[in-house]
Amino acid sequence: MQIQIDTTPLEENSYKVYINELKTIKLKGKVAIITNPTVSKLHLNTIKSLIQADELHEVSILDGEEYKNIQSVNYILNELFKLKFNRQSTLIALGGGVIGDITGFCAAIYQRGINFIQIPTTLLAQVDASVGGKTGINNSFGKNLIGAFHQPKAVYCQTDFLQTLPKRIFNSGIAEMIKVAVIYDKEYFQWLKTCNLNDNSDLSKAIASSIGLKAKIVSMDTKERGVRAALNYGHTFAHVIEMETDYKKYLHGEAVAIGINMANHLSLEIGCLDMIQIEQICKILQKYKLPLNYKIKDIEKFYESFYLDKKSQDKNVVFVVPNQIGDFLIKKDIPKEVVLKVLRKFS
Amino acid sequence: MQIQIDTTPLEENSYKVYINELKTIKLKGKVAIITNPTVSKLHLNTIKSLIQADELHEVSILDGEEYKNIQSVNYILNELFKLKFNRQSTLIALGGGVIGDITGFCAAIYQRGINFIQIPTTLLAQVDASVGGKTGINNSFGKNLIGAFHQPKAVYCQTDFLQTLPKRIFNSGIAEMIKVAVIYDKEYFQWLKTCNLNDNSDLSKAIASSIGLKAKIVSMDTKERGVRAALNYGHTFAHVIEMETDYKKYLHGEAVAIGINMANHLSLEIGCLDMIQIEQICKILQKYKLPLNYKIKDIEKFYESFYLDKKSQDKNVVFVVPNQIGDFLIKKDIPKEVVLKVLRKFS
Repeated sequence: MQIQIDTTPLEENSYKVYINELKTIKLKGKVAIITNPTVSKLHLNTIKSLIQADELHEVSILDGEEYKNIQSVNYILNELFKLKFNRQSTLIALGGGVIGDITGFCAAIYQRGINFIQIPTTLLAQVDASVGGKTGINNSFGKNLIGAFHQPKAVYCQTDFLQTLPKRIFNSGIAEMIKVAVIYDKEYFQWLKTCNLNDNSDLSKAIASSIGLKAKIVSMDTKERGVRAALNYGHTFAHVIEMETDYKKYLHGEAVAIGINMANHLSLEIGCLDMIQIEQICKILQKYKLPLNYKIKDIEKFYESFYLDKKSQDKNVVFVVPNQIGDFLIKKDIPKEVVLKVLRKFS
Repeated sequence: MQIQIDTTPLEENSYKVYINELKTIKLKGKVAIITNPTVSKLHLNTIKSLIQADELHEVSILDGEEYKNIQSVNYILNELFKLKFNRQSTLIALGGGVIGDITGFCAAIYQRGINFIQIPTTLLAQVDASVGGKTGINNSFGKNLIGAFHQPKAVYCQTDFLQTLPKRIFNSGIAEMIKVAVIYDKEYFQWLKTCNLNDNSDLSKAIASSIGLKAKIVSMDTKERGVRAALNYGHTFAHVIEMETDYKKYLHGEAVAIGINMANHLSLEIGCLDMIQIEQICKILQKYKLPLNYKIKDIEKFYESFYLDKKSQDKNVVFVVPNQIGDFLIKKDIPKEVVLKVLRKFS
């Protein structure tokens, strides 16, 4: 299966996502696989045997979100300089979202931009991080606060890589799949209600649908200035939840699941979704053991935290809510009192 | 005077360079002027009085090429995070090439890209660094090895800022003006032979011509994959000279002047320029006290150093030479022996 990612108007940067089509990759010049010891143990040999290049290197960084920082970037860049990588060289990101984001960022700033290829090994990275060209790192002020938009040359998603994932991490990726269905494709949503994502064939189909939908949205807005905000559905809330719990209690997808539920209740409050639809969405989330509730301790503080989000604009908090299933609204004018009323339900 | 910089195909990023048109700049949101103590003393108050913004801050870094590094980037970014800058905020680069490059790079990676405006205070920065969207920093492996392409929203060039420049620094900027004339515009070259760039009116015209020409070349090739290589005329040699002299003996423009002379002799060697044309070019360079000669100690080593340039492609060294005055050739196939013969003239 192949999906063309058209990042119009940056036409030169269009690329393809290949699903279960990883065969030999032929590359000119020097190539480095950026990975971590956990992924390396499972998949590095397989990948190495598939890559043909003039020189093939590997650079490993420590495993974990806490290493998605400027120190790791410096380490990778220095290794590349030592290996005399040039503008014709290529980086391959082999790993989850952290490896993908950090490799993409290194590729974006090494000699003002070199090629990179993504081989995402988690479901979340396959359906979400592999499309959109977002790269970045965290710092002490927050997540992904430093970064760049830089499109990969190709993305290879292999469902057999997902077999080795712990179930909880696998499930957390499903939240992003449900997200795009709810805001953008009613038919896909209906299908998600009945399919079983633990089945490999259903899973491949769902990955393709999710990527296709995200690509459609991103291609309309590569630099995240308009409609792409729709992909933030659930995330405005999720970011605060993750921050309040120190990025430890919930996996990203789990926080998104709760955020989706909160956004749905906001939608209900402004007269869009009804309780039946909210229940339908909850049911799919629950099927994959995703959480729906989070106990907010300080409602005012939670609300204030919306302003720390890098997508927030001065004075206005932007909320994405389903208008109905398969359609979304971007609302900049929801009165604070209405939002607080929803937050109170979760307190 | 206004010059429209059209960075097609990235149409959204087109911007204008204003020459001697700096009046009030009205900006929304938070604004930070990035500068250094030397420039700050001379021009900060003037600039501050011209900027209207919701919040106006300044961030000063130490003056000098040696501070164009990741530490300064981290310092600036941290200041911006502390000030809660968001995607609607703007940076203003007030200074020479170092300030421009580093500010542009910070703007490129802060929250994946925010707006920036250039107010270049050296001639070199006005005619060269202000057009092309190149941003970056140095590291222990070399100059500008880490960076990004990021276009400013506007550039303001004020010739009165150049009055405070030491003469040697002023003259070094003239090398880049001669460079674009030789490779791209015979008429402008003829005019350069007769004009006096110490005269403010001639200077404004020359700045406008140089910027206009560079813009024309860059707009054909924003990401530096083809014709833009023409701007490297003189630079392939200059980079090695700068490296060999530890970036201390020559100002960038001075090294470029020598590089232009070397490239001209290479052109002569392959049957393009003749000695009369070479003399004409030398005469203008000399008029502004720019050097023409550099004593190469180790010719083989000098040649090998071409491969360290980030624009070099595997196996081939790319040379830009004038075909005749006003026209250039990009040559990837000049035999090593021919290049060595030219280098020998300078040994």
